[in-house]
Amino acid sequence: MIRDLILKNRSCRRFYSEIIIELDTLRELVDLARLSASAGNAQPLKYILSCNPKKNALIFPYLAWTGYLNDWSGPYEEERPSAYIIILGDTEIKQSFGCDHGIASQSILLGATEKDLGGCIIGSIQREELRKALRIPSRYEILLVLALGKPKETVVIETVGPTGDIKYWRDSKGIHHVPKRALDEIIVDES
Amino acid sequence: MIRDLILKNRSCRRFYSEIIIELDTLRELVDLARLSASAGNAQPLKYILSCNPKKNALIFPYLAWTGYLNDWSGPYEEERPSAYIIILGDTEIKQSFGCDHGIASQSILLGATEKDLGGCIIGSIQREELRKALRIPSRYEILLVLALGKPKETVVIETVGPTGDIKYWRDSKGIHHVPKRALDEIIVDES
Repeated sequence: MIRDLILKNRSCRRFYSEIIIELDTLRELVDLARLSASAGNAQPLKYILSCNPKKNALIFPYLAWTGYLNDWSGPYEEERPSAYIIILGDTEIKQSFGCDHGIASQSILLGATEKDLGGCIIGSIQREELRKALRIPSRYEILLVLALGKPKETVVIETVGPTGDIKYWRDSKGIHHVPKRALDEIIVDES
Repeated sequence: MIRDLILKNRSCRRFYSEIIIELDTLRELVDLARLSASAGNAQPLKYILSCNPKKNALIFPYLAWTGYLNDWSGPYEEERPSAYIIILGDTEIKQSFGCDHGIASQSILLGATEKDLGGCIIGSIQREELRKALRIPSRYEILLVLALGKPKETVVIETVGPTGDIKYWRDSKGIHHVPKRALDEIIVDES
């Protein structure tokens, strides 16, 4: 059931870094994005795959991991992602990418979840530093970085309370809690 | 397998309009979007659901169905969608919506596909006319319209040829062909 897969696919920020993800696995995941919808079928997205420790270490420093956790700014060495998929927009094909990278990310992460992997869509990126580190040609806009690995954290969905606070938090046991708005709050009109 | 579902989930523009989609089905689909990732967990997306013929008829005139088919501009009455989900951005929560609506759309369409329904993500919308027709408050930005129904067309994936042409086409039997770029074309770098 897709609902089970979507429920299992929680954004995850700590991983068993010793688990290796093969390049073929990343290619399979990108193939899911390739087969997904693209506005006007233009398919302007391109991908950089990384699953080797050296390249992973070039990517990691330029990612912001959380806006809400005060005492944690990102995973320690032994909890870092095993792989990354960088989603680029090819400006020689299109100048703006609509929400194609959202569609692609969801396909990739659902594919990863099915393989008992998990990940996090990271949009807060030091883009120019990452571009230099990986020598990404100026033709490509850096849209998102997907961090991937074997999840090493438990994530629990909560309901947004009366204050409307949507900030996620970690409890004393390290369990990550994510408040989601209720269905009736997000449906404006129905008939 | 998620790959099978993604392969089955082809953008579809002609439907068995006599097939009814219940409101509960639309609510289930929006619930999949609700449980999907949102940048900074802000969850700024809101939804309008429509599955009654009168409301559907208010929405239909403001949608552009295709950029590439010269002799077909949209489905005839008997092939129109049974339902719509309009994705809105709530500007009281956020001013820009990143690719949240792409993530949400993919969850909804995969959910629809699992139910043997199908649909099309429509971004080419006469937004102000639609806003007036449905009296959508100015607080909401109209992001996308998802057309949903029981698919009445066959869609086949092709490989983009040497000319690089990505335009989809219909053959004399009405089969819809969609050229997709090869995996090696969209992977810029891997290691």
